[in-house]
Amino acid sequence: MILKTNQPGLAATIAIVCLVALIGTSPVKAQEAKPNILLIFMDNFGWGEPGFNGGGIIRGAATPSLDSLAADGLRLTNFNVEVQCTPSRSAIMTGRYAIRSGNGTVPLGEGVYGLVQWEVTMAEMLSDAGYKTGMYGKWHLGRTKGRFPTDQGFDEWYGVPNSTDESVYSSLQDFANSGVAETYVMDGQKGSLPKKVRPYRLDYRPLIDRDLTDRAIDFMKRQAEANNPFFVYLPYTATHFPTMPHPDFVGKSGKGPWGDLLMQIDSYVGELLQTIEGLGIEDNTIVIFTADNGPEALSAGETSLTVENSMHGSAGPWRSTLFTGYEGALRVPFAMRWPGKIKPGGVSDEIVHELDLFPTLARIAGGEVPSDRAIDGIDMSEFFLGRKADSGRDGFIVYMGNDVFGVKWRDWKLHFKEQTGWNGVLREYTMPRVYNLINDPQERDNVLFPHTWVPKAALPQLEEHVASLKKHPPIPAGAPDPYGPPKPQ
Amino acid sequence: MILKTNQPGLAATIAIVCLVALIGTSPVKAQEAKPNILLIFMDNFGWGEPGFNGGGIIRGAATPSLDSLAADGLRLTNFNVEVQCTPSRSAIMTGRYAIRSGNGTVPLGEGVYGLVQWEVTMAEMLSDAGYKTGMYGKWHLGRTKGRFPTDQGFDEWYGVPNSTDESVYSSLQDFANSGVAETYVMDGQKGSLPKKVRPYRLDYRPLIDRDLTDRAIDFMKRQAEANNPFFVYLPYTATHFPTMPHPDFVGKSGKGPWGDLLMQIDSYVGELLQTIEGLGIEDNTIVIFTADNGPEALSAGETSLTVENSMHGSAGPWRSTLFTGYEGALRVPFAMRWPGKIKPGGVSDEIVHELDLFPTLARIAGGEVPSDRAIDGIDMSEFFLGRKADSGRDGFIVYMGNDVFGVKWRDWKLHFKEQTGWNGVLREYTMPRVYNLINDPQERDNVLFPHTWVPKAALPQLEEHVASLKKHPPIPAGAPDPYGPPKPQ
Repeated sequence: MILKTNQPGLAATIAIVCLVALIGTSPVKAQEAKPNILLIFMDNFGWGEPGFNGGGIIRGAATPSLDSLAADGLRLTNFNVEVQCTPSRSAIMTGRYAIRSGNGTVPLGEGVYGLVQWEVTMAEMLSDAGYKTGMYGKWHLGRTKGRFPTDQGFDEWYGVPNSTDESVYSSLQDFANSGVAETYVMDGQKGSLPKKVRPYRLDYRPLIDRDLTDRAIDFMKRQAEANNPFFVYLPYTATHFPTMPHPDFVGKSGKGPWGDLLMQIDSYVGELLQTIEGLGIEDNTIVIFTADNGPEALSAGETSLTVENSMHGSAGPWRSTLFTGYEGALRVPFAMRWPGKIKPGGVSDEIVHELDLFPTLARIAGGEVPSDRAIDGIDMSEFFLGRKADSGRDGFIVYMGNDVFGVKWRDWKLHFKEQTGWNGVLREYTMPRVYNLINDPQERDNVLFPHTWVPKAALPQLEEHVASLKKHPPIPAGAPDPYGPPKPQ
Repeated sequence: MILKTNQPGLAATIAIVCLVALIGTSPVKAQEAKPNILLIFMDNFGWGEPGFNGGGIIRGAATPSLDSLAADGLRLTNFNVEVQCTPSRSAIMTGRYAIRSGNGTVPLGEGVYGLVQWEVTMAEMLSDAGYKTGMYGKWHLGRTKGRFPTDQGFDEWYGVPNSTDESVYSSLQDFANSGVAETYVMDGQKGSLPKKVRPYRLDYRPLIDRDLTDRAIDFMKRQAEANNPFFVYLPYTATHFPTMPHPDFVGKSGKGPWGDLLMQIDSYVGELLQTIEGLGIEDNTIVIFTADNGPEALSAGETSLTVENSMHGSAGPWRSTLFTGYEGALRVPFAMRWPGKIKPGGVSDEIVHELDLFPTLARIAGGEVPSDRAIDGIDMSEFFLGRKADSGRDGFIVYMGNDVFGVKWRDWKLHFKEQTGWNGVLREYTMPRVYNLINDPQERDNVLFPHTWVPKAALPQLEEHVASLKKHPPIPAGAPDPYGPPKPQ
């Protein structure tokens, strides 16, 4: 705050009043060190995978590091996301439904896609708040100049611009002469174009998460030594198709490649937690473990013919896979640890959405939430810190791609459209189906009758959302973008 | 052991040798007090219900007592049962597949059914070993003279002979004039015919488990005061259809009747644990919490139209309901606590079957396993007590009614027949389907090709079982039964 006045006494008074106001409203006092933030973001990792959600050994390997992370912090059983990679990553980075940013679906073509410069990412927000920002892993929010992570608030980035299915391409028939560009692993620094390190092929596919871990650890060490608050965004790739554990873990679980992968993940997370402990920054570091969307898995009627090449995920008790409107797509594992601030052993079934992390972390880190656009996330710092029991969120819009598939409201869900699996058939209903998620986690039992009151309770959310979409155009026509607008494909 | 000899010195020597042999092989030394056993047996209670398996709050209520019971003992994630009420109860009581005892299915007609006198139940085995035996709850193994719990080794019994769907009968159209007998709540003592206490109707349906708890507590107090080792078999009724929580819990969870029921169950189990603690017998009391089979729940395509009357259960990550060959029917929650003997915090995915409890508890209690018949259970005392990591069981035969639906072998399952839900259509396969349970917990992905080696590994079990069925007739023709053979319906 800069005050220009020729009355020093008045300026001091105002400054004190402002400081008192700041102390009174901010969960983190201005004088306190800003907490470091490590956000571990798994790929297509279902609710049912970690031991802390009843998975672990039944999925092929115990997950002691994940379980202790959850036991030492807050576990959310109703943490929701958008149901595809790109929209989920857009939402968590911006605090806005992906449709607002034009990122409602994963890109299938080769054109320009992803975040435009006008968007304010979590990395930009934290960077502006004084954080050093590093990202290690999969971006999936742009592969062209101006849209790389280092164009969007990250000081450093090592990883892949798109997704991991591309690592298979060079091994597939007809790809070589297709004219489709091969994806590269990239290494970038803010202010310059990322460098191509190597093609992202099957030889490197099992190795990449080891390198991501090493680089994240190195970054944390450098920042801790320099006394910089840091934000590490660690979108791991391992649990995306193709399932290929690192050689260090192949065969280690005795339960097949998925069990090996669980061991690998847990081991890497253990290394991260040990690093934080070793640096003596445990009490001042927030660690979040979650995922972009529900699992890759087979649906009824599909068959893979081999176990090894199957899609291996499990949503636990919830129905179906990613790319649907079911809980299996929406709910993902979530644990958040902040020693001394978040009480250990907490578990809550309150509805939280990945949208909420942007404003919540802004509040905690002393960052600024943009006021010139619609932000769909809610500041839940009071909830996370245990000062109130309710999250403040009654529900959210269930997008599948750019379609509104339904509305979730408390323990109920309306479905206007359903797709029974990621490659299922799109069904549209003339009357919405109503499911109760406590009684019917598999979403089989349409109880619109007698519960015709549920649409009345749930629909205002959607009406408000549609009104907000009309009021706030996705990206303002005049929004400045130093690299220019996206080119048509 | 009775030795008839006119050489006292020799008799004494033999007795000492026998005692030494006993000490050498028995997990519980002969001189030690026999541990009390409380076996809490839920009805149609899916794997996914308790918090310790990832349920709890997502099912409508936290289950802190169940969770601490599991945390203080051994939790099994792969504890299996037969898939209907009557066969499951027959198997746990006898250590024999229900088909051997003629109890392969629930009885639908009004005829004589259940255990014949020739069978040796867990209660008889423990009674012979010096235990006082009390049962409180649902029997479902006979409703006629000679087949009540008090004819089968229980000193006391209070509960219902059949199942809880019968509590609805008197409220249904046309029942009154049908000639079908109404079911009564009964109160029995060993050596006499149980007395009818009251009709089992909807007015008493929500109340019965409260009374079962009170009577179990009273029994434990009486036996502890008299210094008798005791066995309490507590087959609760609450979680069977119709879903009707006790008035003390109606509306308490805020999540509907199933949540209320979860609170009720957890509260009652808490009372039982507190009683044991209050009596100072915690260290000498084994507490087992498990269930007869997987949940009542809707399958794809079914609809209940109201949430309140739905079948409410969840098998967690496993497929389907009771009355199927899927893991949802077979795997049930299991926790076993024995302070000082079973290490706290243990979790294992080793295959265990309810059949194994008979020989295991016999070993622990110094009871005798009959040697004149086929016993399918395995003594797993060394496994339960943490002296070996493997349970000693590679698999088991998957019965559905009197049909062999499949064979489970390690992480694999062969299905010869499938029924997709309790009221599904029976499908028979000319080639068995092969599922991998780690990669594919929903049993959707038939991987017979390339895994044609799996039947080769799994089928010897079935061959041995069939040979054993031929060798050991279900009930020997000359088996003594003081009440005579079952009458034809």
